[in-house]
Amino acid sequence: MESSSFVLFGATGDLAKRKIYPALYNLFKDGKLSGPLSVIGLGRRELSNETFQHQVLDSLRTFSRRPVEDSAELQNFLLAFEYSVLDVGRPEDYVKLLGHVQRREEELGLPQNRMFYLSVGPEFFGEIARNINASGLGDTKGWKRLIIEKPFGRDLQSARVLNDSLNAAFKEEEIFRIDHFLGKPMVQNLEVLKYSNPVLRALWQNRYIESVQITASETVGVEERAGYYDKAGALRDMFQNHMLQLLMMMAMQLPKGSTPEDVRSKKRHVIRSVRPLLREEVTQHVVRGQYAAGELRGQQVPAYTAEPGIEASSQNETYIAAKLWIDDPLWKDVPFYIRTGKRMKEKSTRIVIEFKEPFNDLHNKNRSKLALDPNLLVIDIGPNEGISLTLNTKNPRQHGQLEPVSIKHESGNPDLPEAYENLIYDALLGDATFFAHWDEVELSWQWVQPIIEATAEGTLPLHLYPAGTFGPRAADELLGEHHWWLDEPEAVEHSVVRQTQELNPEAVRPGA
Amino acid sequence: MESSSFVLFGATGDLAKRKIYPALYNLFKDGKLSGPLSVIGLGRRELSNETFQHQVLDSLRTFSRRPVEDSAELQNFLLAFEYSVLDVGRPEDYVKLLGHVQRREEELGLPQNRMFYLSVGPEFFGEIARNINASGLGDTKGWKRLIIEKPFGRDLQSARVLNDSLNAAFKEEEIFRIDHFLGKPMVQNLEVLKYSNPVLRALWQNRYIESVQITASETVGVEERAGYYDKAGALRDMFQNHMLQLLMMMAMQLPKGSTPEDVRSKKRHVIRSVRPLLREEVTQHVVRGQYAAGELRGQQVPAYTAEPGIEASSQNETYIAAKLWIDDPLWKDVPFYIRTGKRMKEKSTRIVIEFKEPFNDLHNKNRSKLALDPNLLVIDIGPNEGISLTLNTKNPRQHGQLEPVSIKHESGNPDLPEAYENLIYDALLGDATFFAHWDEVELSWQWVQPIIEATAEGTLPLHLYPAGTFGPRAADELLGEHHWWLDEPEAVEHSVVRQTQELNPEAVRPGA
Repeated sequence: MESSSFVLFGATGDLAKRKIYPALYNLFKDGKLSGPLSVIGLGRRELSNETFQHQVLDSLRTFSRRPVEDSAELQNFLLAFEYSVLDVGRPEDYVKLLGHVQRREEELGLPQNRMFYLSVGPEFFGEIARNINASGLGDTKGWKRLIIEKPFGRDLQSARVLNDSLNAAFKEEEIFRIDHFLGKPMVQNLEVLKYSNPVLRALWQNRYIESVQITASETVGVEERAGYYDKAGALRDMFQNHMLQLLMMMAMQLPKGSTPEDVRSKKRHVIRSVRPLLREEVTQHVVRGQYAAGELRGQQVPAYTAEPGIEASSQNETYIAAKLWIDDPLWKDVPFYIRTGKRMKEKSTRIVIEFKEPFNDLHNKNRSKLALDPNLLVIDIGPNEGISLTLNTKNPRQHGQLEPVSIKHESGNPDLPEAYENLIYDALLGDATFFAHWDEVELSWQWVQPIIEATAEGTLPLHLYPAGTFGPRAADELLGEHHWWLDEPEAVEHSVVRQTQELNPEAVRPGA
Repeated sequence: MESSSFVLFGATGDLAKRKIYPALYNLFKDGKLSGPLSVIGLGRRELSNETFQHQVLDSLRTFSRRPVEDSAELQNFLLAFEYSVLDVGRPEDYVKLLGHVQRREEELGLPQNRMFYLSVGPEFFGEIARNINASGLGDTKGWKRLIIEKPFGRDLQSARVLNDSLNAAFKEEEIFRIDHFLGKPMVQNLEVLKYSNPVLRALWQNRYIESVQITASETVGVEERAGYYDKAGALRDMFQNHMLQLLMMMAMQLPKGSTPEDVRSKKRHVIRSVRPLLREEVTQHVVRGQYAAGELRGQQVPAYTAEPGIEASSQNETYIAAKLWIDDPLWKDVPFYIRTGKRMKEKSTRIVIEFKEPFNDLHNKNRSKLALDPNLLVIDIGPNEGISLTLNTKNPRQHGQLEPVSIKHESGNPDLPEAYENLIYDALLGDATFFAHWDEVELSWQWVQPIIEATAEGTLPLHLYPAGTFGPRAADELLGEHHWWLDEPEAVEHSVVRQTQELNPEAVRPGA
């Protein structure tokens, strides 16, 4: 890794304190940052370097995953942080900033590598990019890069406008769009799991896979983000970005000897191959939901429309589920079911791959008697990481009966790097593997555009679901003969009792 | 299940007390025996029914896996046991026994179904069978069956003689040859695992499997069985029966809708397809070993030749390993490595299936850098049951490095039925699935015959290995470029540290 200046817009904001400073600190502690370190924080308020450094220290004490102890090392880390006041609309502030950056480059002997991190609202992206360009901040002998955060537009058209404004100052390969789901260790592991394990490589195809389910369920409600969320909804807040990124990571097929460019190209291939939603089909393939009052872990919780800051008449969705098809030989006839929602029963991000059981023939009269539990590969992304595989075994206590058991790995290591550590590190390395390329963003907006339009027209119904459940019943019907797996984790634990089939001894053998 | 009389030869013997009575008791407790129960114990000594019942009770108290509490139910169970004195060589004793069996049949209203269990040395089998025939015990309106125990011969010729002597009174389908390995729940599970799990069915072929290893290691030495064991050795005591049975269970491929007869036919197919050992190849494919003095769990233990009852000059093997090939399209080019021994480091019966990793190309110059850990499917048969699968994952703490993790199921249930419960139950049902058919026994003897002959001629070397190790070094050389997996369970636990590959980030992707 080459040294660089880290120029942070929005240095007094919430994301900086909760995620960016702790990430930098933990990377520093791990010896992953090549020194000398120069961080220049920017904000509208006047702050001395000392006050800024004190704020950084406070944020580490509150949010760092590792304890912060006073030491010379910690002092060195904090002294790398300096502050400049900046009003994003004042060109002269950027000229001053350039002076500051150059002074630090000289003081520290840094090459002219400049990382610009925009931890500010997207309405400022264009102006900042223009001013970076105009002020000369972008004229470097080294590299310049831009890190930005979601939301990246609110529909296809606005996303294109936003992207054009960035392209005035940064080339696509200089732009690192954070989708923090791509920073989660288990998401990054998907690629390795598929391609470093011959047993999974062999199985990763429509010949063996019956369906794929991707769920991101939250137990929280709208929290303090009413103003933003009531305009965005689950579609823009989660589905268009995180959920479709998970889909791409899950479904992409890498060639032998692939590079970060291959990853992007294969993700693009996936999202481009998702069968477009026809306007007249939206209601059959998409379910929108909104939480009503309900009970969560024994507590009564209010309806979405009773939350502070939300209009009682809000038709915004807090849940969305969709059925997708990837028109690609590998995934032909494999449905992908994707859902995300707030105030659901369980906090969980999870991919469930259901394998085909050809012996469970729908046309077999004895099906109910013989049906085997399907083999499921469950990839738990969060809050706990894990990989498990459900297999059918012989019940050693019941002659001639089967029971499903789960073979399981849980990382059990709470001290994993956070998404932001992985992502900031990769951006500093210049590795774009786990960032969202513009093509992916644009194609994702394109895919969801009919949903946005149907919603705006009021043709896509909004189904209420009680808080503390797994979403509206309409989402179960979406699946037809399939059903959502693992909605009742306690039921899975007891599946040995509940799901055991009554088989006669012969029937233990396949198809008997 | 139809009711029957259970006629037990050797009723005062060790096996009866340790295994048979506890098995009957636990089956009775589980309600798996159809009443009324009639057990007639036979022995040379005169015993009253009461004394015999007391001995049965003692054995339950000592050896039953479930507690024995005084109750009316227990009394009923014990009252089903009666005793007759019998000298196996005296025909008139069998006539008296017939009277006893018939009296009980009448008293209890039992159909004339008769189970003869020979818990006696094989030298008596022929005489007993002849007398069962001559006395009329075998002339029943119902069924008659015979349960016998190993050893079944000491070479091909003696096994054939023994079998002929049984056939004088029992047809093959009436003979239930116990190989108690076939009664172990996880061995019985193999069949279900393979055919009830589409993911395993897909992988169960030479296209995906690199090698199969079957290990049964014991930590005990020769114990009190010196007289028998020094004449049998590991080859006759373990390899010809248990180990080759495990091979058959592992390698057989059942058709859809299979029956117990199919199982036997497919096992026969496997053992018949094992490539015969050529006399001149025995030394290349088989390793014999004998334990020398050594240390086991911190204790000094003596050499085999220093054990009580063993000659100092004994050339008997306490360890045997062999490399086998199954000449069948499914298993073409997949080596099977089989080993068993006493006084080894670990007590464990285990099958390890190593999957092919085509990206680990032997001719790839970068192999040492890129080599992935293979995917292993580990089936632990005993003393603890378990199924685990080793997968490569991305090390979340080390950028660009992989680590193998194990996804695992351990039954964790110590209260599983014992092998004898499963087997006696199946024999009473008339289900021969988990018994050794004569063809299997004969073909197994035929396969090991060149080893017996080479040993007798002294052309097969005997390698010493220190007690408390994993056997002689020659057994490692037997495997060529492979090696025995999981010999160091603690090393596997730490494999995250030891086996992590140094990969550059690109190399994380396959073949990069």
